[in-house]
Amino acid sequence: MAQGRLFGLGVGPGDPELITLKALRYLREAPVVAYYAAKEKRGNALTSVEDYLGAEQLRLPLIYPVTGKKPPPPFDYEGAMRGFYDASAESIAVHLEAGRDVAVLCEGDPLFYGSFMYLYDRLAGRFETEVVPGVCSVVASASVLRTPLVYRDQRLQVLPGTLPEETLTQMLDGVEAAAIMKLGSNFEKIRRVITKLGLEKRALYVERATMDGECVRPFTEIAPETVPYFSMVLIPGERWQG
Amino acid sequence: MAQGRLFGLGVGPGDPELITLKALRYLREAPVVAYYAAKEKRGNALTSVEDYLGAEQLRLPLIYPVTGKKPPPPFDYEGAMRGFYDASAESIAVHLEAGRDVAVLCEGDPLFYGSFMYLYDRLAGRFETEVVPGVCSVVASASVLRTPLVYRDQRLQVLPGTLPEETLTQMLDGVEAAAIMKLGSNFEKIRRVITKLGLEKRALYVERATMDGECVRPFTEIAPETVPYFSMVLIPGERWQG
Repeated sequence: MAQGRLFGLGVGPGDPELITLKALRYLREAPVVAYYAAKEKRGNALTSVEDYLGAEQLRLPLIYPVTGKKPPPPFDYEGAMRGFYDASAESIAVHLEAGRDVAVLCEGDPLFYGSFMYLYDRLAGRFETEVVPGVCSVVASASVLRTPLVYRDQRLQVLPGTLPEETLTQMLDGVEAAAIMKLGSNFEKIRRVITKLGLEKRALYVERATMDGECVRPFTEIAPETVPYFSMVLIPGERWQG
Repeated sequence: MAQGRLFGLGVGPGDPELITLKALRYLREAPVVAYYAAKEKRGNALTSVEDYLGAEQLRLPLIYPVTGKKPPPPFDYEGAMRGFYDASAESIAVHLEAGRDVAVLCEGDPLFYGSFMYLYDRLAGRFETEVVPGVCSVVASASVLRTPLVYRDQRLQVLPGTLPEETLTQMLDGVEAAAIMKLGSNFEKIRRVITKLGLEKRALYVERATMDGECVRPFTEIAPETVPYFSMVLIPGERWQG
């Protein structure tokens, strides 16, 4: 019996219409649809494509053991995540071995900070695998914020907000253009760095770009405790006066 | 009479199926479809969506005055480009004033190194404007190269290959992950920098990712004179051993 194929499908940043034709085609053809979600949540990826799924398609949730703040040691966070990705890969492999294709839903793009990468690293050597790229949150945020992001010879730094304050400071000092992702509880630190470097007039803030609850607010007026993980700060490149 | 609306539509990296549902909807509804192209060429953006267009839709080509190598001074390259964008914006404004919506086709994403940005800067203040983000070449290249691009807390540097050799050296020294775009005649310089920094084993090369003529080749074996502008070098982040 032929093995099933693994598909990593970028479903885009949130708006169901921002899925590509190709991802939608594979999605509709897949007998098994896997997706990551936090405990007792449906997950953003499933939410954005649910209307496209048929009743007969098997939903395979992959439930993160931990989301939000990491529990302090002695809890072995790295070990827990590794075990979770191992188990997720095996739960998918069961279907692939049985000849059923599995589509993994990926918010944004599968290979750009996506949890799909851990499945890819475990399964792509064993099963035929195809990745369909998606619209990533960086460019989706620029469209919602209505700002060109990088002009001509400008460089773009993409930075996870989880980085230490010194690293962020070093990376943003004199930066031409930047996208800072994964804000959440990191926002206060990030705003401190941006303010210290005098970049606050260039910084633009959006939360949940293209998702339900999308919201653009002035960077200097944000209450840090309200900032969700799915939010972004962009520092666009200076406009080319051409 | 109501003015027409301006749409910047990300049509994705080349594969016609990598357009989003949203961009396709707006594309089909637009009475006027504008696109950039080199002299006597159709342009990649038009090529990827041509099958979706109806016979009744007006095609408005915006023909670059210069492509490839810049002519040396006294030719005023900056002035020529500025004049070209001014004229392009006005040729679109004529339709918008007359109440016709205009969709501008944008390879990849409209606000990520896109020529649409110069139209946006000229027209968004005068006309209702909407931008639909697209799959950009960076993530499309990762999918074709079958490589996760950035893990977890890794930073990503996006660099135009047009930058001077010292700048590229400085930016790539110790880099965690990078995407180097706009290769073409810059390839030899870029390979020199990458080799000098000992990064050649990590560098992956693709040309025309997802377009006709897509080609993946070993980075060390490329004849520089064959490298097209639409090619990319990726230095993926180190795999997370999780």
